[in-house]
Amino acid sequence: MAIVIEGATLDGEPAGVRIDGGSIDAIGGGVEAGPGDERIEGAGTAIVPGLVNGHTHAAMTLFRGYADDLPLMEWLQEHIWPVEAKLDDEDVYWGTRLACAEMIRTGTVRFWDMYWRPGAVARAVGDAGLRATIGPPLIDGGDASKLGELKRAAAEGLAAIEEASTPLAAPSLAPHAIYTVSPESLTWIGEESERLGIPVQIHASETEQEVIDCLEAHGVRPVELLDRVGLLSPRTLLAHAVWLDERERELIAAAGATVVSNPVANMKLAVGRIFDLAASRRHRLPVGLGTDGAGSNNSLDLLADVKHFALGQKHLTTDPAAAPASEALAIARGERAPLLGARPLAPGEPADLLLVRTDGPELGVGALEPGLVYAASGSVVDTTIVAGRVLMTKGVVEGRDEILERARERGRRLGLVS
Amino acid sequence: MAIVIEGATLDGEPAGVRIDGGSIDAIGGGVEAGPGDERIEGAGTAIVPGLVNGHTHAAMTLFRGYADDLPLMEWLQEHIWPVEAKLDDEDVYWGTRLACAEMIRTGTVRFWDMYWRPGAVARAVGDAGLRATIGPPLIDGGDASKLGELKRAAAEGLAAIEEASTPLAAPSLAPHAIYTVSPESLTWIGEESERLGIPVQIHASETEQEVIDCLEAHGVRPVELLDRVGLLSPRTLLAHAVWLDERERELIAAAGATVVSNPVANMKLAVGRIFDLAASRRHRLPVGLGTDGAGSNNSLDLLADVKHFALGQKHLTTDPAAAPASEALAIARGERAPLLGARPLAPGEPADLLLVRTDGPELGVGALEPGLVYAASGSVVDTTIVAGRVLMTKGVVEGRDEILERARERGRRLGLVS
Repeated sequence: MAIVIEGATLDGEPAGVRIDGGSIDAIGGGVEAGPGDERIEGAGTAIVPGLVNGHTHAAMTLFRGYADDLPLMEWLQEHIWPVEAKLDDEDVYWGTRLACAEMIRTGTVRFWDMYWRPGAVARAVGDAGLRATIGPPLIDGGDASKLGELKRAAAEGLAAIEEASTPLAAPSLAPHAIYTVSPESLTWIGEESERLGIPVQIHASETEQEVIDCLEAHGVRPVELLDRVGLLSPRTLLAHAVWLDERERELIAAAGATVVSNPVANMKLAVGRIFDLAASRRHRLPVGLGTDGAGSNNSLDLLADVKHFALGQKHLTTDPAAAPASEALAIARGERAPLLGARPLAPGEPADLLLVRTDGPELGVGALEPGLVYAASGSVVDTTIVAGRVLMTKGVVEGRDEILERARERGRRLGLVS
Repeated sequence: MAIVIEGATLDGEPAGVRIDGGSIDAIGGGVEAGPGDERIEGAGTAIVPGLVNGHTHAAMTLFRGYADDLPLMEWLQEHIWPVEAKLDDEDVYWGTRLACAEMIRTGTVRFWDMYWRPGAVARAVGDAGLRATIGPPLIDGGDASKLGELKRAAAEGLAAIEEASTPLAAPSLAPHAIYTVSPESLTWIGEESERLGIPVQIHASETEQEVIDCLEAHGVRPVELLDRVGLLSPRTLLAHAVWLDERERELIAAAGATVVSNPVANMKLAVGRIFDLAASRRHRLPVGLGTDGAGSNNSLDLLADVKHFALGQKHLTTDPAAAPASEALAIARGERAPLLGARPLAPGEPADLLLVRTDGPELGVGALEPGLVYAASGSVVDTTIVAGRVLMTKGVVEGRDEILERARERGRRLGLVS
């Protein structure tokens, strides 16, 4: 049975969408429901592409509001890692479901996730109906003698993702960072990524300390190290990429790797620098946008974060024309980084799309693109469709109440929620 | 008839509120509706104080999404001022109603407004049910010979506010800025404010250019000029206050004036500096938070802006503990600046309060205060009550559809909306 959206607008013109078998069958003017089609009323809404969250740790929704206003390392070492050690599959499953519910609510159709128990993440993604690239986190504590364990963790993680057997979850490898993985293991991960043809996601150049420590330990800067060990390729996603110099940007450009800015998490953890879009543009780097985990943001609402991103660029350059709405939005949609997997709204393409309300105060007066970036939060999203499945209508996410109740139960179990 | 909220929480404990004649009659545990009371179901919500928007130009909702991504002066002189010249009372009335609808939706109970046709603003405020301090904008183009005209504008503006005869609208005087009002007129405004016992609101030290021009024209910095002309007093609200030096902060502190930060507008217009909370705290300055107008933000959602404010402070100081959630929230509630008029939630006090949903993904897991600052947008507000009148229940603002339709009509008349 086809799904047909009628009476909406697309680029300001009356339009509809016909969705069949997970793909867009027709889009634009004159699309109408036939007998037997499932009809979605689009009046008062605009059809827009979904957003792509290029970096998050979905299950960390369980840690939201736990241990805020702390430095990164204190937050990780004294608060997050001790609780993470207690997590089981069900915790990760329901934490991820909660994250998916929030992303569906706020218009994200695809995300890049780096978290423990990737099999549970993949199950949650499949059940929630979002698309995700999932990576088993790989850490050897900088001790190359643990490469065997790391290989086992990678194999088990990838097997667990495969076992969840959902076409929505794509596998990747997720070495945590250069300061938690030895160069030898990074080299193996690069080779494995090439052998399997799957992406690598890694935190890179998030803090100045990371650069200082890397220079001291390895005599080069973090991205130079990643280049030296063979981890830079078109399959590589560098999350944060804040403390880069020009040489590092050249290396990223030469390799065709992708950088993903996390403006809110960077400011919340006070890393001291703003991601430099103008420099990225000069080097033609593929750029994406991420929320980071709910533990360090604490929201997964990319329509809120795209405003933080655009404002940060204006502030950084003291140019109010920097990162104009159309560019910021394209980045939030993953359109400036092919690795992220965004596809255009066109016949034959996957039916991943949103209806946003254009009859409310946020988007009811004024142009749509600046409205989405500067005036709206994710609450303007009315309908979220991924792979042709309607995950939310009228702002209510399928299964929302059960997900919240179960996530709260897991939080109580972990002693995070009273 | 009393209104009784039952089954909510207050500071994590079961609680209710009894409201009678615009005031809080009882608040806390054990409050229950009696026969004849109007009962509001509070299950799944927390009772919290409303927010105070310390600086806005409400009717500029009509300009939302019109001429974004431009420098301040180009934006004002080439886009905003020409359209403003065409505004009539009905434009300002419906633009303000739209702003009020958005503020009610997102939990603001009181705002400070500076806009043309203050009588229309006051009528809109009275009809919408929000509290506002309204100021006729006063401008003489730096030409002291126009003081007579400026006095007339002040008198007419104040009379128009009075004529609207709503207890919700308080009068003030609103000289635009030191670069648009002559020192002689500023002196008169200071005297008039003292004579009438009403506040003065003025844009101050928003851009570096303002400081440079002031030094050139007057040999002193903007706040020194305000001090010299007698405009600094406990009744004075300085909007922006970004480009201050220590001497200026001393003068503000000595006078007991209030500074109101507008973090989003400052970043959007790329003024090049972030408001310095730590310096303000050192001088014990009263501090408030504002959205600025929807033309330069473009949202009036203070729960979004409080996150921008807190993150800006963390970035500025490279200290993730700067502006912790409790402090940022107190500032957004007007609790750190008595001039702004916020009152505590206690028996005998005005019934200005919110119910926020604690059963959704944003506030459903984790502590409330960091949740409100870092995880929530204004969409978590379920119920907004001002002066005992219920302006919104279940997220739907009274009269929303008519307000949007009328505001769109006015936008079309002005050629801002197609």
